[in-house]
Amino acid sequence: MVPTSENGPPPPVYREIAEELREQIRSGRFADGDRLPGENVLMERHGVARATARQALSVLINEGLAVAVRGSGVYVRLFRPVRRHGARRLSRELWGNGRAIWQTDSDDRGYEVDSLRVEEAAARDHVARTLELAEGDPVLVRSRRYLVDGRPVQTAVSHLPLAVVGAEPRFRGHDTGPGGIYARLAERGLAPARFTEEIRVRMPTPEETGALALAPGTPVLEVARTALTAEHRPVEFNAITMDGSAYVLQYDFEA
Amino acid sequence: MVPTSENGPPPPVYREIAEELREQIRSGRFADGDRLPGENVLMERHGVARATARQALSVLINEGLAVAVRGSGVYVRLFRPVRRHGARRLSRELWGNGRAIWQTDSDDRGYEVDSLRVEEAAARDHVARTLELAEGDPVLVRSRRYLVDGRPVQTAVSHLPLAVVGAEPRFRGHDTGPGGIYARLAERGLAPARFTEEIRVRMPTPEETGALALAPGTPVLEVARTALTAEHRPVEFNAITMDGSAYVLQYDFEA
Repeated sequence: MVPTSENGPPPPVYREIAEELREQIRSGRFADGDRLPGENVLMERHGVARATARQALSVLINEGLAVAVRGSGVYVRLFRPVRRHGARRLSRELWGNGRAIWQTDSDDRGYEVDSLRVEEAAARDHVARTLELAEGDPVLVRSRRYLVDGRPVQTAVSHLPLAVVGAEPRFRGHDTGPGGIYARLAERGLAPARFTEEIRVRMPTPEETGALALAPGTPVLEVARTALTAEHRPVEFNAITMDGSAYVLQYDFEA
Repeated sequence: MVPTSENGPPPPVYREIAEELREQIRSGRFADGDRLPGENVLMERHGVARATARQALSVLINEGLAVAVRGSGVYVRLFRPVRRHGARRLSRELWGNGRAIWQTDSDDRGYEVDSLRVEEAAARDHVARTLELAEGDPVLVRSRRYLVDGRPVQTAVSHLPLAVVGAEPRFRGHDTGPGGIYARLAERGLAPARFTEEIRVRMPTPEETGALALAPGTPVLEVARTALTAEHRPVEFNAITMDGSAYVLQYDFEA
């Protein structure tokens, strides 16, 4: 399609083998959980050295399409991405009825929250600007990690102006009550009416690689979400970091 | 925040130096176009070997935060990400008035389209399913590349059922006329009323690295967009691949 892809040297053999396997995964010839041809098979089939066969399989592992199981082989990865449905998951119908936003994301699969930490901090820079606070104004910061099928998939750091959460203890607890913090905001007359999500992608920091147990070469998605009341008052800023291989983000909108 | 980030060995020195520079870029101490401290300065300041200083700068270059200019130094990168505003850019007000969707994305900057290729093809797999066609039904495929400030930022491959575009020549041209293909669809009584966008992120294929001139370690965003009429008839499927370092995607929606 683009000229640059038509010129230049041909791709190395390991790339070609990886591409062939990738196509077989995409087409469904190999399904989730299937064992891919091993190094010996690839060596014989393509007449290549072991290092080349191994490199081809590494490409798929690094892309998150396959996982190596020690002493057994390389398998098409079992994890089904979480479909995160932008607008539907944040509809008032959901949290207004006491359900957790996450119930729409993890489908039939369970999810867990761990590593919750709640603390007060001073708003700085982007957080202060987004929440329309002065530098140093106090915010409540809720940090936590989400796991699906036991696999860490995202971390989220919510910032709420202290003036908004007041002394209500459930903003500070592990269990924020039915419908979560948006239902609690609604009870205080500060129901979110609009959301803005900004999406960026980049390679992870070493800390993120650890927290999300990322495979080598896995990018992260940053979702920066701001919740606003009907009067356009920002009541929450949430900095979400997702394992890029674990998510499909979906947004539906009108023309 | 997460236990795994608190245990384990401390990060290597080059990572620490990179993190310090990264913070100085994020905080605005170094702005777009500023020259970063060179290898000699980093060696002296941190008491490290040249290889370590070079590695620290490489981290920032690989993250797309800096570019090396041969014989001169390493500079905070000049490219300002394109802010792509999901709903606003596809509003009927825009294309209904004869404007190009891209005019909302590139702000005051110009954009160019190159490498346009238009051809008929048989719909297969995901394209056939999404457009509710039988396998092998004919589609018009429009492939092209977009550049902002002379830099390639995305490729897009639109698929339109041949039954939808008919013999109208402007679907096949470089210039699709005022308001582009959505305005042409509207003239045929098939105006898009709803859009669905699915976002995935992954590392690029070698072809994508070439077509988008990606720096090493730059992930790509895949946006798969389906346009539907008010009667829920799918009229276009667009497979968009973006330089992940060149974009901020924004979506606004109601609670």
